[in-house]
Order: sequence, then C-alpha cells, then structure tokens
Amino acid sequence: MYVGRSYKLIDFALWSRRSVIYMVVVSGMAVAAYRLPGIAGFSVPWSVVLVLGTTVSLVAGFKNSQVFTRSGEALQAFTQITASSRVWSNFCRDFLDAPTAKQLIYRHIAWMTALRFSLRRPMPWESMGKAANIEYMRRYRIREDKGSIADELRPLLAEQADKVLKSSQPALALLEMQSVQVNALFKDAKLPPQIYVELTKLIRDLHDQQARSDRIKNNPYPRQYAIVSSMFVMIFCTLLPFGVVPVFAEMGKLGGVLSTVGIWLTIPFSTLLGWAYMSLDQVGESSANPFEGNANDVPISQICRDIEIELRAGLGEVELPKPLLPVNDIAT
Amino acid sequence: MYVGRSYKLIDFALWSRRSVIYMVVVSGMAVAAYRLPGIAGFSVPWSVVLVLGTTVSLVAGFKNSQVFTRSGEALQAFTQITASSRVWSNFCRDFLDAPTAKQLIYRHIAWMTALRFSLRRPMPWESMGKAANIEYMRRYRIREDKGSIADELRPLLAEQADKVLKSSQPALALLEMQSVQVNALFKDAKLPPQIYVELTKLIRDLHDQQARSDRIKNNPYPRQYAIVSSMFVMIFCTLLPFGVVPVFAEMGKLGGVLSTVGIWLTIPFSTLLGWAYMSLDQVGESSANPFEGNANDVPISQICRDIEIELRAGLGEVELPKPLLPVNDIAT
Amino acid sequence: MYVGRSYKLIDFALWSRRSVIYMVVVSGMAVAAYRLPGIAGFSVPWSVVLVLGTTVSLVAGFKNSQVFTRSGEALQAFTQITASSRVWSNFCRDFLDAPTAKQLIYRHIAWMTALRFSLRRPMPWESMGKAANIEYMRRYRIREDKGSIADELRPLLAEQADKVLKSSQPALALLEMQSVQVNALFKDAKLPPQIYVELTKLIRDLHDQQARSDRIKNNPYPRQYAIVSSMFVMIFCTLLPFGVVPVFAEMGKLGGVLSTVGIWLTIPFSTLLGWAYMSLDQVGESSANPFEGNANDVPISQICRDIEIELRAGLGEVELPKPLLPVNDIAT
Amino acid sequence: MYVGRSYKLIDFALWSRRSVIYMVVVSGMAVAAYRLPGIAGFSVPWSVVLVLGTTVSLVAGFKNSQVFTRSGEALQAFTQITASSRVWSNFCRDFLDAPTAKQLIYRHIAWMTALRFSLRRPMPWESMGKAANIEYMRRYRIREDKGSIADELRPLLAEQADKVLKSSQPALALLEMQSVQVNALFKDAKLPPQIYVELTKLIRDLHDQQARSDRIKNNPYPRQYAIVSSMFVMIFCTLLPFGVVPVFAEMGKLGGVLSTVGIWLTIPFSTLLGWAYMSLDQVGESSANPFEGNANDVPISQICRDIEIELRAGLGEVELPKPLLPVNDIAT
Amino acid sequence: MYVGRSYKLIDFALWSRRSVIYMVVVSGMAVAAYRLPGIAGFSVPWSVVLVLGTTVSLVAGFKNSQVFTRSGEALQAFTQITASSRVWSNFCRDFLDAPTAKQLIYRHIAWMTALRFSLRRPMPWESMGKAANIEYMRRYRIREDKGSIADELRPLLAEQADKVLKSSQPALALLEMQSVQVNALFKDAKLPPQIYVELTKLIRDLHDQQARSDRIKNNPYPRQYAIVSSMFVMIFCTLLPFGVVPVFAEMGKLGGVLSTVGIWLTIPFSTLLGWAYMSLDQVGESSANPFEGNANDVPISQICRDIEIELRAGLGEVELPKPLLPVNDIAT
Repeated sequence: MYVGRSYKLIDFALWSRRSVIYMVVVSGMAVAAYRLPGIAGFSVPWSVVLVLGTTVSLVAGFKNSQVFTRSGEALQAFTQITASSRVWSNFCRDFLDAPTAKQLIYRHIAWMTALRFSLRRPMPWESMGKAANIEYMRRYRIREDKGSIADELRPLLAEQADKVLKSSQPALALLEMQSVQVNALFKDAKLPPQIYVELTKLIRDLHDQQARSDRIKNNPYPRQYAIVSSMFVMIFCTLLPFGVVPVFAEMGKLGGVLSTVGIWLTIPFSTLLGWAYMSLDQVGESSANPFEGNANDVPISQICRDIEIELRAGLGEVELPKPLLPVNDIAT
Repeated sequence: MYVGRSYKLIDFALWSRRSVIYMVVVSGMAVAAYRLPGIAGFSVPWSVVLVLGTTVSLVAGFKNSQVFTRSGEALQAFTQITASSRVWSNFCRDFLDAPTAKQLIYRHIAWMTALRFSLRRPMPWESMGKAANIEYMRRYRIREDKGSIADELRPLLAEQADKVLKSSQPALALLEMQSVQVNALFKDAKLPPQIYVELTKLIRDLHDQQARSDRIKNNPYPRQYAIVSSMFVMIFCTLLPFGVVPVFAEMGKLGGVLSTVGIWLTIPFSTLLGWAYMSLDQVGESSANPFEGNANDVPISQICRDIEIELRAGLGEVELPKPLLPVNDIAT
Repeated sequence: MYVGRSYKLIDFALWSRRSVIYMVVVSGMAVAAYRLPGIAGFSVPWSVVLVLGTTVSLVAGFKNSQVFTRSGEALQAFTQITASSRVWSNFCRDFLDAPTAKQLIYRHIAWMTALRFSLRRPMPWESMGKAANIEYMRRYRIREDKGSIADELRPLLAEQADKVLKSSQPALALLEMQSVQVNALFKDAKLPPQIYVELTKLIRDLHDQQARSDRIKNNPYPRQYAIVSSMFVMIFCTLLPFGVVPVFAEMGKLGGVLSTVGIWLTIPFSTLLGWAYMSLDQVGESSANPFEGNANDVPISQICRDIEIELRAGLGEVELPKPLLPVNDIAT
Repeated sequence: MYVGRSYKLIDFALWSRRSVIYMVVVSGMAVAAYRLPGIAGFSVPWSVVLVLGTTVSLVAGFKNSQVFTRSGEALQAFTQITASSRVWSNFCRDFLDAPTAKQLIYRHIAWMTALRFSLRRPMPWESMGKAANIEYMRRYRIREDKGSIADELRPLLAEQADKVLKSSQPALALLEMQSVQVNALFKDAKLPPQIYVELTKLIRDLHDQQARSDRIKNNPYPRQYAIVSSMFVMIFCTLLPFGVVPVFAEMGKLGGVLSTVGIWLTIPFSTLLGWAYMSLDQVGESSANPFEGNANDVPISQICRDIEIELRAGLGEVELPKPLLPVNDIAT
Repeated sequence: MYVGRSYKLIDFALWSRRSVIYMVVVSGMAVAAYRLPGIAGFSVPWSVVLVLGTTVSLVAGFKNSQVFTRSGEALQAFTQITASSRVWSNFCRDFLDAPTAKQLIYRHIAWMTALRFSLRRPMPWESMGKAANIEYMRRYRIREDKGSIADELRPLLAEQADKVLKSSQPALALLEMQSVQVNALFKDAKLPPQIYVELTKLIRDLHDQQARSDRIKNNPYPRQYAIVSSMFVMIFCTLLPFGVVPVFAEMGKLGGVLSTVGIWLTIPFSTLLGWAYMSLDQVGESSANPFEGNANDVPISQICRDIEIELRAGLGEVELPKPLLPVNDIAT
C-alpha cells in the first residue's frame, strides 16, 4: 500500500508508460491514414467517440468501485485479526500458566505466518507478472519472497514445525492444533467454562477471517467483467485519435505555425487522453488482488509484524523484532 | 468460475458471435436502406443514438453491479460453509467417540453433497439452455451432471441413504438428522452443555447458509429489470447502424478508395460497437445465476471437494479423493 | 415473482401499452404543431432532450437500484423466517412432549398466516389499483385475496382462534402467546435452560423479521423521490417528439417515399423511445412494494406454504397441503 | 412521511414555487440581455450547459442516494426499537410481579418519549426554517411541538419525573434507571440469570439504537457535499436560460406566430427545466434530516404511539391512547 | 465537522481560491494563444471537453461516495464507543465497590484520551499541510494540538500514568490493563459470571472499535484512485478554457460591447466552471481522512468530552468539565 502523500506524477507516468507508447503509435497511424492518398480524410465520427467515452467512464467506474470494496474487505479481515489476536493473548496470559500461554501465543504467530505465506503465493490471474509491475517492484520488497516459511515457523513451533510444514495447508493445521489444545484444557478443567467459550469464539473468528481472506485470494474479480471493461477502454482509445485527427487537420487551415504543426497536435493530444483513460482501467486492475505483492496491496507483512511485536512484548520478551517500515513509501 | 489470467479475446468473441451476426445483418440492412431508391438517405439521427448510448451504459452498469453483488453473496455463503465445516469437524472429533464423530462428519459431507445437487438443478430462467452457453460448456464439465446423488450419498450414509433419498429435500432431511442426533447426545449427557451450544450454533449457521443459497437459486434476478436492460440494448444496437451510415456515406464523397469502400465501413464499425454493447449485457445475464453450471459460476463442486478432503484427512483417512482441478481454466 | 425464462415481449408491451398511447398522442401533436400554419416549424432543440435523457437515465437508475435493494431485503426477511422455522420445529419436537410441540408448531404456522394476510392488505401508495396492474392480475391469483384469515386460523388454533382474531394485530398476538408458553415451560422446568435460551433467540428473530417486513410494508419508497423520477420521465417523453420532428421533416426533403412518409416517422420512432423510458420508470414503481400482490412481489404465499408442508411433515402428518405452483409463471 | 398515493403535482409545485420565481427572473434577464443593444446576441454556449447537466445529474444523484441511506437507517433504528420494546414487555410481564413490570414498562414508554423530544429539537443545519417548509408545515402537525416533555413524562414516572427532567439528557437518565433496577433485581435473585442476560441484551440494544439516532441527529449530511451539489445546481440553472435563448430566437425567424412569441418561449421552457433540476436538489436536502419534523421525516411520533398502545394493552389497560393518524396524508 | 446551516459561499470561495487563481492564469493563456500571431485560432475541440466532463463527474462522484462511506464508518466507530462506554459505566457502578468502579471508569476515560491523541497524529498523506487547510484552520482549534497526552492522563491514572506513557501504544496498554483487572476480579469471584461475560464483551467491542479507527487512520484512501481522479480534473480544467475561447471569440463578431468584451468573457466563465469542478475533487480529498484535524473531521474531541462528562456525572462528581462547543460552527 502506498503511504506517501500522493503518487508522484512522474512515477505514475513511468509505471503507465506502455499506454503512452501504444497511444503514440495509434495516433501516428491516424495521422498517416488521414493523409494517405486514396483514403485521405479517413476518420471516425467524433459522436461515436463521445458515446464510447461515457460508457468507458461508467464501466470503469463501476469496476473500480467493486475492486475498491474487494480490497477494503481484505483490509477489514486483517483488522479483525489484529483485534482478535490482542484478545487471544490477554486471555491466554491471564488464565493459563506461562508455558502454555507462550505455546498458544507462539502458535498464533505461526498461524499468521503461514496465512501470510499462503496469501502471497502467485495466482494465474494476478498481475505481478506484467512488465509494468515487475519493473515497479524493484522499488520495494515483499518479505515473503525473501524468506521461507520453514525458516520462520521453526523457531515458533519447535518440534511441531515439521508436522505443520508437511501439511498441505499449514495455516489450517495450526488453527486445528489450537482447537485441540484448548479443548483438552477445557476437558482437564484447566480453563473456566466462560474463558473456554471466549477462546472458542476467537478460534471461530480466526477461521472466519482465514476463510474470508482465502475467498478473496482464490476467487479473482470476475474475469468476464474485467475483460468487458478492458475491451471498451481499448476500443475507445484506439478510435480516439481517428476522431481527433480531422479537428486538428481543420485547425491547420488557420495558417501560421498551425498550418505546419496543426495535424501533428493529434499525437500529444490523443496520447494525453488515451493515457488517462487507460490508467483509469489499469488502476482498477492493479488493485483487484489485494494479496499479490503489488504496491497497492493490503500490507499484511507489516500488520502481522506489528501484531507479533505486541504479542511478544505482552509475554515480557525484550528482544523484539523491528517493525517493517515502508520502503520508498510502500508498505507491504 | 474462470480462473485463468483473462478470458482469451478469441474465446470471448466466439462465445458472443451471435451478436456479431445480428449486427452484420442489421448493418447490411442500414446500408441497403440508405441506398434503396425511394427511401434513399434514410437514417436515424445520431443524437438519438447518443442519448440511448448513455442510458444503455447506465442501465447495464447498474444491472451488472447488482448481479455482481448477487454472485458475491453466493460465494460468501460457501465461504461460511467452509469455515463452519472446519469448526464442526474439530468439535466432533474432540468431544465425541470416534464412531459418532465419523457418523456426524460423514453426514455433514452428505449434506454438502445434497445441497450441491439441489443447487445445480436447472431452473426456467437460467441461461444454460442458450446456444452460446451449451457450446461453451463443451470446454469443461459439471461434476453433478455426470454423477447421481444416490451414488454419492450411499457410501456416506450407509443404511440411512434410502430414507434421505426418498425425502423431497435431502439436504434438509440431513440437517434435521444432525439436529436430532446432537439433541439426543445432549439429553444423554454425552456432550458438555458448552459444546452442545456451539454445535447448535453451527447447525443454525448451516441452516442460514442453505436458506441463503436456496434464496439465490430459487429467486431469479428480477426478470422485469433484466428485460428492460435487454430491451434498451436491442433498441440501441438496432438503431446504431442507421445512425452510423450517413457519416460513412459522407466520407465516401472524399474520393479515392473511400468512395468505393466508404459506406461499407458502416458494417465492421457498427458491428464492433454493437458487439461490445451486447457483450456488456450478456456478461451480466451470464453471471446472474451463480449455481447454474455456467463458466462464471461459484465453483461449488470444487469448494465442497476441498472441504471433503480436509474433513476426511482430519478423521485420519489416507485414501483421500483428489481435488477437482480447473478444466480449461474453468473451476466448477 | 415472475419465474419464467423472461417476460414475453408481447406481455410486457401489453402491460405498458398506456405509455404507447400517450406517446402516439404527443407525437401526433408534435407533427401537427410542426405543420400548423402560424407556428409551423415549432420544435424543441434536441440538445435539451439530450441533457434530459442523461438525467432521466441516472435518476431512474438510482431509483431502480434502491427499489431493488428494498425488495431484496423483503426476500431476505422471508429467507430468515424459513431458516428460523426449521430450527424452531426441530427444537420443539426434540425437547417437548408431542402435544405441546404440535401446539407450538401449529401456532407458528398460524403466525405466518397472520403475517401473510397483514402484508397483503392494500396501502394507499401501492400500485395494484393502476389499470395496467388490475388487468395483468387476471393472469394469476393471490391466495390471500381468495381466502379469509379466520378460515385459515381456526383449524390451526382451535379455541384460541377467536381471541387472536379479535386482536388488532393477530400476528403479534400469536408471537406473544408463543413467548408466554415458552416462558411458562421454562418456569415449570420443562425445558433445559440451553433450549430455553435458543427458543428465546428464535422468538426474538421472528420479532425482528416481522418488524422488518412491517417496516417495508408500512413505509413507502419515499414519495418525494418517486415523484421527481416520474416528473423527469414525463418531461423527457413529452418533449422528445418535439425534438425528433424536425429531423424527420428534414429527411422528407430527400424525396422518394420519404417525402410522403418522412415526417410521420416521428410517431413510431418517438413512441418506441418514449415507451422504453416510461417502462424504465414503471418497472421501478411496480417493484417498490414487494408485498402488494404484484407480479413482481416476493412470493410470500408460496414460501409460507412450503414451510407449512415441511413443518407438518416433520410432525409426521401424511395429508399435507399441496405446494403453490406458479400460475402463468408467476409465483405469489 | 408522506403516505398518500403520490405527492399531488400541484402541492409539489406550490412547495417548490420559489425555484419557479427564480427561473422566471433569470430567464427574463436572458431574453433581455439577448436583445439589449450593445450586447445583443449574448448567450452561453449550449455545450457548456450540456456538460453541466450531466454533472448536476450525477452529483445530485449520488447525494440523493446517500441521503436515502441516511433516512433509511433512521427508520431501521426505530424498527429495532419496536421489536425490542415488544420483547422487553414480554419478559417483564412474564417474570416479574405486576407492579415492577408496570414500572419497567412505563419507564420504557417514558424513555421513548424523552428520545422523541430530543430528536425533534431544532439543529442549525436543519431545513425547517426555510420558507417553503414553514409554509408546507401548516398542513400537518408535529406532536412534540404542541406538547411538553414534562407533561408527558409526569404520568409515566410519578415522583421520579422531576429527577429525570432535571437531567441534561432525560432519555439517557431513564435508560440508566432501567439498568440500575434490573441489576438490583438480579442481585436480589428476583430474576433468573437467563432472563437477566436477555434484559441486559435489550438494554444494550436500546443504547445502540439511541446512539445511532443521536448520530444521525447530531451529525448533518456533510455540509461540504451539500454545498457542492447546490453550487452546481445553481450554476446550471442560472446558465440554462442563456443557453436556451438563441435557439428560440432562431425559431422566431420562421415567421407566423412564432416571430412574435418565439424568443419568449425561453421563459416557460427554461423555467420548466430549471424547476425540475432545482427540485431534484431540494428533495435531497429535505430528506437529509429524518428527525427535523419535515413532511419527509421518519414518523417517530406515530411509531412510538403505536408501541405505547401495544405495551399498555399488554398490561391489560383498556383506556388506550388513540393511534396518531396521518394528517393530510403526512404521518409524523 | 461543520455544524452550521451551510458553508458560507464566501468562506468556501476563500478556501478554494487557489483553484480560482489557477483557472484565471490558464484562461488568460487560452485567450493569448488564440490571438497570438502564428498560432492564432488555436483551441481545443469542445467535444473533447464534453467527454472529459462526463468522466470527471463520474470519477469524482465515485470517489466522493467512497470517501463519504469512509468517514461515515469513522463516525460509527465513535457512536459504538459512546454506547459501550455508557454500558461499561453502568456495570462498573452497580456491581463493584466504589473505588474499583472509579478506577475502571477513569481508566476508560484515559483510554479514550490516548486513542484521541493517537488518531490526531499527522500522517504523510493527510491534507492538513496544504496551504488552503492551514489557513482555514485559524478559524478553529484542535484540542489535541494544544494539550499533551501526559498532562491529560496523569490526573486520570495516578501512579500508573508513567508506565502507560512509556508504552508505544498507550491506548492499547490501557485496554490490556482493563482486561487484566477484570480477569482478576473474576478469578477472585468478585464479579458474578454473567457480569464478567458482559464486561468481556465490552472490552472486545472496544478492541474492535479501536482496530477499526486505526484501520481508517493508518490506511489512506487508496492513493492510486486519488491520483487518477485529480489527474482527470486537472486535464479537464486545463483544457476547458481552450475549448471555451472560440465560442466567445465568435460572439465578439456580433458587434456592440461584445466586440470588445467578447473573448475576455472566456476568463470569468472558464474560471467559474473550473473552480466548481476543482472544488468537487477537493471536497472529496478534504474528507478522506476523518481524524486529521480538518474542518470536515469526525468531531472526536467533542464526542469523547461528552462521554467523559456523562461518566463523571455518573460517579456523582459535581465539578464537571465543560462540553466542547463548536468554534465558528466547526465541531472538532
């Protein structure tokens, strides 16, 4: 997630420069076609461009709005995890002996770690493979790409780590181990029933938040909607210069410098507009997968690190991990 | 649910090629009418097309947005079922003897199976009967279309299967059997009250999710809204070529190749636009029934299979069913 | 609720034919005015029609979207009632002696009956009095219009029926009787506390769903919003032919058949467009009151009958009422 | 809340006639400017009016939609209060001796009364001070404006009334008194724990609904949004006649009656449009404060009276207050 | 939060005068370019401006709508805190001895204080650093900017203050201390289990509301969306005067005063429009961070002070702090 004042226009322009190149090429073709003997004067009626412009704005507007809700929900899931983690830690420390509490809290940190790694794995529809994003990604780093889940889980789980790592869904395996232990404590009457009920509620909540995050991770923003939006943007941007060219050709008749420059103004002008509309679509596309490791992601590495610090401090540890600071204004 | 990077444009075009044919025919008629002696010069004022274009975008935009919410809710119901299934399985295994636990967990899998079959049955308003969809469906397969509910329930329910299969709503019958057994365990004091309360909550949640899925299955996206949207799209697309034809006829006066080609550009041009707008409407229509077995469905077969694998693994079974992988990038 | 594949265009056209007549008359006036000596050439600038067209689409779009949410909520209330009824029936049968269970379940059916009748009563703002709807209603029947609440409640409530029928709000009186009896069972220790708490929750939920349905029934979609939307549609549709007429008059100058037909094309053309926009508004208006007995209603008679069948079957009855099938594709 | 079939157009026109006057004056100025020697022919390009028209529709559409949600939430709060009141009354009557039950139920009615008066007090941003609303208000009456809170609370609270009236927030003081008494009953073991827990939940719910109503009352629809919307409407409506005037001036050249009348058509025409757009904005503004005593309010006096009747009837009283019927179709 | 009747137009204009200056300069350039020999007659086709206008309205409309939801959620969090604080105070006073109750309630006030200070700290993306806002801020004052957290916490926490102030997250430390004490009271059997459960729920709710407020504070409205919106507004407003200039130049040909004034009308006219559109964007931007100390903020200082007064009055204190009144109609 970008946490600076505002994207710098230059960064934004660099990121989206592929659109610029596309627009320059199409505009050049429009100017050429307009002047090419045989089809001289060829253009697309502006009124068509106008209808398309309205549709593009609406379709992209709805898409961005839905994508916004989607990544908002991802953030909410991790907000809930934050609150539940704190309550979990309080109950464990107040009602259980120190070693058991530590075990349950460490395993909770391990669960967040496993969930984090699982959410960062690449999916076919995610856009990190796109040239623009690969390039941009040099500016920051994703913690899960550098480390390995095994290295992170071992110190937290001791001898249980291997069993968890062998599981096909480590996060789920860890939540189940929490259940089993809490249930055992209850059966051995080591937990008052009220506290057992509260811990049970918390485990249920963690299950819900994991299922919610998995839902967002495993189910893309419907591809049929995405393609319709991109299709309209592409049709609009391709026709745009053909609609603009006669206007500037006309202006060339005014004489002066314009007679030379006139028609060529089509290129910067169409490019500016086309770039803006393509960015509108690209921005939605780049926010659709909030766990892919994008600059617009929900910063799950940072959120989980913050929780880890709190929980360890609560256990009285003094050698705490450092918070993950944004790199180049990007929190991950 | 399509889970590839993006629909391939060619697939999308093939799927929607009926719109293309319609547009070519209407465009041809527009060109013919424009040239037909007696009504030569007949056209529809573009300004009318412009107003309609804005309306079509808005009406289709709202419709797609509502349909998106609808299928989003269907997905949420199954996310909840996933989370509840895991918690159900944990409680059963930790607080009941092995055979009872196995019986309750198997019956839970049977319930998901019955629900799945019930949600896949065809409804009059669903669009799987449409030529475009039948054709597209050759690319993937719906598990419920191949198997029979009887074959799937028998190994799970043993002698109880027949009674369930005779019921008019097998899923409901299975949930009731869960209630009856859990209540009996409570009355026999084989369950601590806290656990009984949790199991009761889970059964209530499963009832809620089933009622929610049934609501989406049994109540179509309001047909009066759907018809208004389609009506506007049809009027717009039919008038479009009549609005475009005079512009290209005019261009024909520029001489060169355009004098021959000019007016015929109406056809590819109107077809491109008409196809885009018809796809906008068709995409909404094809996402409106998230359980119909469409390529844009909520992948309930896959979700239920994943849960089944988890629950069986939890029971310590080693011969687990295989996950259902997407076929041609379509998860079902 | 219409549950066919799609409204037939002919039915839809018949239903909305009053708009057609209005548009034909206004278009005729526009042609006449355009030719009337003295004001010959009178028209409304198209650009004005254009602005209004955008506004009409937006205002009607927002209205339809809000109305959609409104009737979606009505459907949700009855989905919740379905789920709660099933749970209610399970608890009653498993924890109470047969006669008491039967009494509580029958009274629950009586409550749904009373609620149903109450939701079907006419309200001043509902649109069933409109000619178009009265006519359309010949195609289906509303169960509550044929029967009487007294006849339906007597077999369910035996001697308690009269007291309930005398009450000003029978549904509420019935819910209170459920509370009183459940509380009495608890005080007599005939219900374990856990079950009492669950039944209490269910009664609370039924109170909530009844209050929710009553809210939708008793509070119209804000009339000030409805009138603004209708006002814009009327202004737009009335001005539309005056904007269209000069375009077709112009076309008449092209000679050929068009010189005779030309200007008269204003009438079919304006009528087509006007009818589409009026339908857009009418469709919203006809969905605004989901309990009025409209073809677009939430099918509460059918939902309640389905629940009744389930509950009676659960009591082991064999002479079950028949499900209410859609009549002419309309579920009520 | 208006509960007739539809606002009568004449009432609506009277209510919004200030817009009409404004539009007539501005239109007159536009005609004058167009003819004034020196600046003859002055007009505003229609294309500008077109852009503004789209923006105005959108901005006003979003505003009306948000305001709709706001007053919908206000209505929901009172729906919840209705349901909770019924459950409160049931528990009190079934589990407490008659005098205590009566005291708790009367105090509940007093709480609703105090809440009602508090929600009806005027706030600086409310629009009841506007001439159009003051005038319209002669048609109905707000119960809280006629009576005094002291007169209404005394019979309900007996000797406790004075203490409550001295409090700065009587509704809150009353809810606290409920808590204190219920807690005391629990400490004296006069309430079974299950019932105490339910009553506690209900008090929490009433606190929530009061805080929700207060939030809507105390926090206006963001003034910065409101001013931007009004600003766009004013700019649009002021420029509109200047955009319309050249079109009708042109029409005057057609001869006949139009040569005399032509340009003057600007006035009725601009007025009709301007009035419609101003109404669009005014309707949102008049629904933004759902407790201000407006004709579009949530009818809290009527809702609370209905609850009062139910609760008193539940206590077996026979001299019940009359329901508050809508006056001139306005429920308050 | 602005709580006057309406922003005064003059204040609004002053606040947004930087847009006015920008528009005057650009308009001047447009006029100059149009007349500059060599490029005389240079303009931007209006049709382009029209497309952009629609897009700008839509993009800004969606943005403002999302920002509205965001600050609405912030307000809801504090509404929940209000309700929970009241219930917290009631339970503490009724079930605990006076000193313990006072300690728990004072610590609760301290928690709100710490939360308040934490939410008011500046973030890189917040807009308080913008010249327009710094200037406007002279009109009101933010309580947290004047006082220090240490001064406010000391009287509430006595000797515990130092420990809390040393913590990196004082609000969190205080909530944990509440947990620890409540848990201890339960373990010492000084709280009935039912009350312990209620207090536990309240602490969980406070954790949730804190996490929710922190989420809104720590995660900006997505910067990529904000920049796209601003980008469209800037492109539109910059091109606008170039689109307007030929129209007024044309009008200059009508003779009279207009021949002199004509083209210069471009400047006031473009400025009026450009200012309105820039305000539309700026208003959204200024509402995006509801805790930054802006005039459009959620008034958390005032809400917390009101709660503090209530809680202290509940403890029987008579020297109560004064409510924070709005300064210049701005509640903070």
